[in-house]
Amino acid sequence: MACLCVGKCFNSVEWREMEMEMELQNLLSDLQSLTNLSLPDPSLHAPLRKIQSRVDHIANLAKAEPVRRSKVKDMSAEVVDSNPYSRLMALQRMGIVENYERIREFSVAIVGIGGVGSVAAEMLTRCGIGRLLLYDYDKVELANMNRLFFRPDQVGMTKTDAAVQTLSDINPDVVLESYTLNITTVDGFETYMSSLKNKSFCPNKQGSGVDLVLSCVDNYEARMAVNQACNELSQTWLESGVSEDAVSGHIQLLIPGETACFACAPPLVVASGVDERTLKREGVCAASLPTTMGVVAGLLVQNTLKFLLGFGQVSPYLGYNSLKDFFPTMQMKPNPQCSNVACLKRQEEYILAKPARDAAAKAEMEAEAPSTEEGPLHQDNEWNISVVDDCELDGPDTRSSDVLPEGLTHELPTADEFKNALTSEAPTNDNDDLEDLRRQLEAINSA
Amino acid sequence: MACLCVGKCFNSVEWREMEMEMELQNLLSDLQSLTNLSLPDPSLHAPLRKIQSRVDHIANLAKAEPVRRSKVKDMSAEVVDSNPYSRLMALQRMGIVENYERIREFSVAIVGIGGVGSVAAEMLTRCGIGRLLLYDYDKVELANMNRLFFRPDQVGMTKTDAAVQTLSDINPDVVLESYTLNITTVDGFETYMSSLKNKSFCPNKQGSGVDLVLSCVDNYEARMAVNQACNELSQTWLESGVSEDAVSGHIQLLIPGETACFACAPPLVVASGVDERTLKREGVCAASLPTTMGVVAGLLVQNTLKFLLGFGQVSPYLGYNSLKDFFPTMQMKPNPQCSNVACLKRQEEYILAKPARDAAAKAEMEAEAPSTEEGPLHQDNEWNISVVDDCELDGPDTRSSDVLPEGLTHELPTADEFKNALTSEAPTNDNDDLEDLRRQLEAINSA
Repeated sequence: MACLCVGKCFNSVEWREMEMEMELQNLLSDLQSLTNLSLPDPSLHAPLRKIQSRVDHIANLAKAEPVRRSKVKDMSAEVVDSNPYSRLMALQRMGIVENYERIREFSVAIVGIGGVGSVAAEMLTRCGIGRLLLYDYDKVELANMNRLFFRPDQVGMTKTDAAVQTLSDINPDVVLESYTLNITTVDGFETYMSSLKNKSFCPNKQGSGVDLVLSCVDNYEARMAVNQACNELSQTWLESGVSEDAVSGHIQLLIPGETACFACAPPLVVASGVDERTLKREGVCAASLPTTMGVVAGLLVQNTLKFLLGFGQVSPYLGYNSLKDFFPTMQMKPNPQCSNVACLKRQEEYILAKPARDAAAKAEMEAEAPSTEEGPLHQDNEWNISVVDDCELDGPDTRSSDVLPEGLTHELPTADEFKNALTSEAPTNDNDDLEDLRRQLEAINSA
Repeated sequence: MACLCVGKCFNSVEWREMEMEMELQNLLSDLQSLTNLSLPDPSLHAPLRKIQSRVDHIANLAKAEPVRRSKVKDMSAEVVDSNPYSRLMALQRMGIVENYERIREFSVAIVGIGGVGSVAAEMLTRCGIGRLLLYDYDKVELANMNRLFFRPDQVGMTKTDAAVQTLSDINPDVVLESYTLNITTVDGFETYMSSLKNKSFCPNKQGSGVDLVLSCVDNYEARMAVNQACNELSQTWLESGVSEDAVSGHIQLLIPGETACFACAPPLVVASGVDERTLKREGVCAASLPTTMGVVAGLLVQNTLKFLLGFGQVSPYLGYNSLKDFFPTMQMKPNPQCSNVACLKRQEEYILAKPARDAAAKAEMEAEAPSTEEGPLHQDNEWNISVVDDCELDGPDTRSSDVLPEGLTHELPTADEFKNALTSEAPTNDNDDLEDLRRQLEAINSA
């Protein structure tokens, strides 16, 4: 297992094991000294040898690794209790997935190994994903124990180290790369970018070195960093989030140029220009539940599997309102006035590539159902119907600065109008106003 | 932690620890013999004492339990990293739950500790539930590793023992009761029934000794046993299930007498009278995914929390079609022709208790919004409107044997008609017919 750990910390069990190993070594050398001292007395030789061999045995017992499952070279569909992949390979026999074993070729990057990211990592590990890249800078705390995955004996370890410990025990076939860093810092972002570009796992892969990025972070700044990297690399990603009151969440598919990016429609609270961190006041923490986070992680990884293995439909956006068991869906086109320059570049490329996409789609359709006739399907066009493209209608030339694409509305006045309103009406650091904004934001998120 | 283990098996790590302990004891007694032998030579006394104290130290290290979090007497909302309940108590500050700490008074029984049940148990444990009763007779296999919860080092342990090991490490505050038994056997059912009736955890509780039963089993026979027990005890339960192709699932709320019981509308494949076990042919296994099972467990426990702590709406039925991210809901009234005698008894009681329910609801409404007027709201009744009860309309006296209550239709001919059709038309052990039935069943389940 290739494991790039930036730094390494040990938990209490590991410290105890190291101390025991040292003590056993000392014991053996003490016994050797005693043997030398007792050479003149032959009656002591036999009991000393017996003690020595017992200490050797104890040292072996202490050294023994806990039983781990061995690596599996090829995934097999054989139905035996000892096959960790039988229930997954059965997806082929059931007609759900065409080639399940392809999962071993894929690399998925998970940013944020918290309540959602850690569970997503475990699900992908148990599914036998080829390679996982894990990013987090935080440490495990007892306050995290109300979510799945981390254990109390891991308190104090970095989340990345604890995750690698647990995941490599669960499935040694998965290649784990652990990055203990903050992607919102300059250095962290640089390392993050180059890790995504690294193609050594699958050199012939098109695009970046990973197949999908999962954003499982808990703040806007980190989401914007994921967004920036993915826009720059033209990297498809899935965003996820859980509300501060723990009872709703969402996942969203972002394909640079094709769908809205995270900067295309910023959340209300962020558009207000208030630093999000001032919302996290002293002595106040967000609520969280293992249920909501487990459901969001499940929906996230289910859509990851659908995306990678090509079955079912990947949801562009899926919300989860747990109070009413309501699951809203929607679709968001990119914003031609997006503030993110890389997003605008990807939008332009997407429009330019339309003829090539159409030709490819046509060729694929023809290959699947070859027509026996050479001529066009409809010889005459008595109603004079012609096909007009969506993209041509809302192309760059028809865009005015106040026009948003279909389906996007301004939840707020424009930034300038908002700035004027704020200066003339209310101070931005008023707590009641912030609570109000938060409630509005949640209403929108859970709508 | 009260833990009633029926039988006990050890995993490889535990065997190694026991062997080490024994060897260290032997070593100490060997050292004592050597000390006695070497009494005549004073030069050996000091090195022997040193060796002896080193062995004592090693024995202490070996005995040391892995660091576990200590029990917490009262749940606190204090926002510190060391508080395992801060994020849950925050649900009160957020206005979601009125009194979160009440969770410690509740007992939940989980039948089936597989892909759904084990994750449900972990979620409730992390939420700090008062008491969990766990039922399963199966052992952990490597073939289970594609679902969350169990670890490869637990292979060979019973699922109940492995669950108690993991859950008690995660949260020592939860009272765990483990029942390694098959509830579909006569003895197993009897123990199951008496465990549900036991009120020692909360002697003043109304009804049975548990607040909710979660059915997380994978076959019809076990569901019917849960149904039987719950109908007899008038015990509310939540049923859950995942399809054999791993891509859909459901949860369902069953309140004896008030909603349909599991026998009120038996699944198609079961109504066919074919033994379900013949469907599980040699060399064939159902597919399963950690995602689908994680989502179903999350929805199940979220509805458990809503039911116990009184927030949001508990879903009567919630489906999950993962291919389309579609979540169907429905509601099922009890079947007055249900084959389950206990169900009919509960239905009768429910109808008889209607006046008392109405009076209680009226009293509660009046207490909440006391009217200043003493007289009736509408003095005259010029349209001669009178209130007629649903239950009176479909009460026992108006029921003919072919009339089903509103919303229930016969998916199949009646049992007699079906029997005749089977005898005259097709043999029941035809594989193609079974496949057909299975597909129809799935279509209904995922509809």
